[in-house]
Amino acid sequence: MSKSVVLDMNGPLAMVELAHAAKFNAMSRSMWRQLRAVFEQIQQNQTLRCVVIRGKDHFCAGGDISEYAEFRFQEHSLRAFHEEDVWGGLQAMLDCDVPIVAQIQGNCMGAGVEIASCCDIRIAADNARFGAPIAKLGFPMAPREAALVMRAVGELTAREMLLSAALLDAAEMHQRGFLNQVVPVAELDAAVQTCVDRMLPLAPQAGRINKQTFRALALVNHTQVASDLIANAYRYADSHEHREGVLAFTEKRPPRFHP
Amino acid sequence: MSKSVVLDMNGPLAMVELAHAAKFNAMSRSMWRQLRAVFEQIQQNQTLRCVVIRGKDHFCAGGDISEYAEFRFQEHSLRAFHEEDVWGGLQAMLDCDVPIVAQIQGNCMGAGVEIASCCDIRIAADNARFGAPIAKLGFPMAPREAALVMRAVGELTAREMLLSAALLDAAEMHQRGFLNQVVPVAELDAAVQTCVDRMLPLAPQAGRINKQTFRALALVNHTQVASDLIANAYRYADSHEHREGVLAFTEKRPPRFHP
Amino acid sequence: MSKSVVLDMNGPLAMVELAHAAKFNAMSRSMWRQLRAVFEQIQQNQTLRCVVIRGKDHFCAGGDISEYAEFRFQEHSLRAFHEEDVWGGLQAMLDCDVPIVAQIQGNCMGAGVEIASCCDIRIAADNARFGAPIAKLGFPMAPREAALVMRAVGELTAREMLLSAALLDAAEMHQRGFLNQVVPVAELDAAVQTCVDRMLPLAPQAGRINKQTFRALALVNHTQVASDLIANAYRYADSHEHREGVLAFTEKRPPRFHP
Repeated sequence: MSKSVVLDMNGPLAMVELAHAAKFNAMSRSMWRQLRAVFEQIQQNQTLRCVVIRGKDHFCAGGDISEYAEFRFQEHSLRAFHEEDVWGGLQAMLDCDVPIVAQIQGNCMGAGVEIASCCDIRIAADNARFGAPIAKLGFPMAPREAALVMRAVGELTAREMLLSAALLDAAEMHQRGFLNQVVPVAELDAAVQTCVDRMLPLAPQAGRINKQTFRALALVNHTQVASDLIANAYRYADSHEHREGVLAFTEKRPPRFHP
Repeated sequence: MSKSVVLDMNGPLAMVELAHAAKFNAMSRSMWRQLRAVFEQIQQNQTLRCVVIRGKDHFCAGGDISEYAEFRFQEHSLRAFHEEDVWGGLQAMLDCDVPIVAQIQGNCMGAGVEIASCCDIRIAADNARFGAPIAKLGFPMAPREAALVMRAVGELTAREMLLSAALLDAAEMHQRGFLNQVVPVAELDAAVQTCVDRMLPLAPQAGRINKQTFRALALVNHTQVASDLIANAYRYADSHEHREGVLAFTEKRPPRFHP
Repeated sequence: MSKSVVLDMNGPLAMVELAHAAKFNAMSRSMWRQLRAVFEQIQQNQTLRCVVIRGKDHFCAGGDISEYAEFRFQEHSLRAFHEEDVWGGLQAMLDCDVPIVAQIQGNCMGAGVEIASCCDIRIAADNARFGAPIAKLGFPMAPREAALVMRAVGELTAREMLLSAALLDAAEMHQRGFLNQVVPVAELDAAVQTCVDRMLPLAPQAGRINKQTFRALALVNHTQVASDLIANAYRYADSHEHREGVLAFTEKRPPRFHP
């Protein structure tokens, strides 16, 4: 079960588990592809009425940095990673007509914030913490992902996370409008169950139409982000600070970004 | 005074009362038409400087469900209800150049949230509660109304209300950014009066120009929601779950949405 | 140093001070031009990694009303003031690729809210208060400025500030999503320093790319606000209430807006 996205369907309820215990459920490249496959499978199942996505102990600590040196330093492979693997998974979630609940505890960083941003309802434990400190790793957020996160966490919080590497706790993220509810960690399962119990008896066609309407009304159309923005988005692949940030993390030393 | 929208003009101040006491001020079809007429009258009056809209004991509990079987189950009559009657009333509010204050107590559900979303300032009593649990009735929110509500309550809250039938109290809706102020119910009249007293001496032309600017800048142009979205929006009229939800409510029994 | 915008560069950190002590750092026309020059200079300096903008005792109390009778009552000079001087300064801030922190205490009104709205991170003292009570002066907010403020403070708060002349304290503006952090006034310097210390070691290219991405994704493109809106925006220049509001303030008497 290591490095996997596990789907468990039980009648009208689908449970999706981000499972990569050795790295606090960080997303490996293969997990992004599995995430897409899982949500495409969910979308094709007409009996489902609710999806819960979660991780054991932690929601998702970000990307699996140990893989980054393999593909991040050439523009074409970096682009393929973000536009195909990562966005493939996120787009499948955004395209899902079944309502999705994020059950969040522990670390919810980078990729974790992105995955949570694709959910309809977000319920967190009070031990959850949020951020996207990738400027420590020497790289910016890809444009579609930035649009998604900016929309979900708000522009101020997105700028704080990306430009100052801030970490924010669950109470603050509730106040910022990213979370529907925050509960003690011991009550997280019960709070999600209460929400699911409220959702399951609702009219399923109405829910699907509502999700389609929200998608059509989206202020940022993630699939139509200006093409020139995406064309230029990965030119930093081979830059000094990108390599330095990723390699320093791998080598367990502080990065040196000064020229 | 039953089933009416009552306009009372007193110098520079217009009071609008949603009055349908038998149903917690739920909007009947005729009340939507009266709402439009009232705000068209307000808009033509150049001496007005402030409008307050409210209901006795409750702001507005939603739509008058007892009328729904008359027109909801044919696509053309359902479309006419939403696009002409409901949107006619809401558009007249959105087009009003005089600042509008919502005074909210008790139930503010469905149509109530929509009407409040057309106001410039929202002051609520601590006994107010908010939601749009129409998936219990087997139907989704119409596209223009969903755009309006999503913009006013935020996308997360709109999804929670529509996809999980959540009810939210005034303190939570203040935190979510929908309410300017929450006060004990005994202080609601005074809080609204304080706000009105601050508004009446302000330059009226400046207020009208500001409202026109906000309207022009609206991120979602409610009058230009994609025409294909609206073209398809009412195809669910004759579906099983739509009939079942509305009829079950009328027959005072739980709906059965399972196929 | 009176009526000036002072730039102090110290290695990777630029400090910008709004300095007009006699008027709580209200922006004179020349200060708007200096603000533009300062941020154009910052933008050209490739060694900077962080900018802090602040004012002594007060952030900025608004515009310098004593100058208004010189140019506000003719449409062409009013337009030049807003579209060239004010927007020139704000646009230079929005175009700055270096992350900007607003350090806010005391009055943050009108122009102060606009300047703060161009910053990436906003940290305030608990004595800060916010508003845009220009309807007391008989005039509306210019369209680009309204778009900027609406985006930063939220539509509900923008309407409350402009249509009811509301003043809001720091705690409320934190809850409304405009402020990242609120601290006791004695701890404001330290809180900003903590944030700056977190920002300086981050990868600078990543920060610049992130800011460019946010700019490209902006929901409201301030430079492309509908041209007809701007064409008509200043017709109120010679109106009674505009003159009355500004002159009454200058003459230290209450304005009389009744026809």
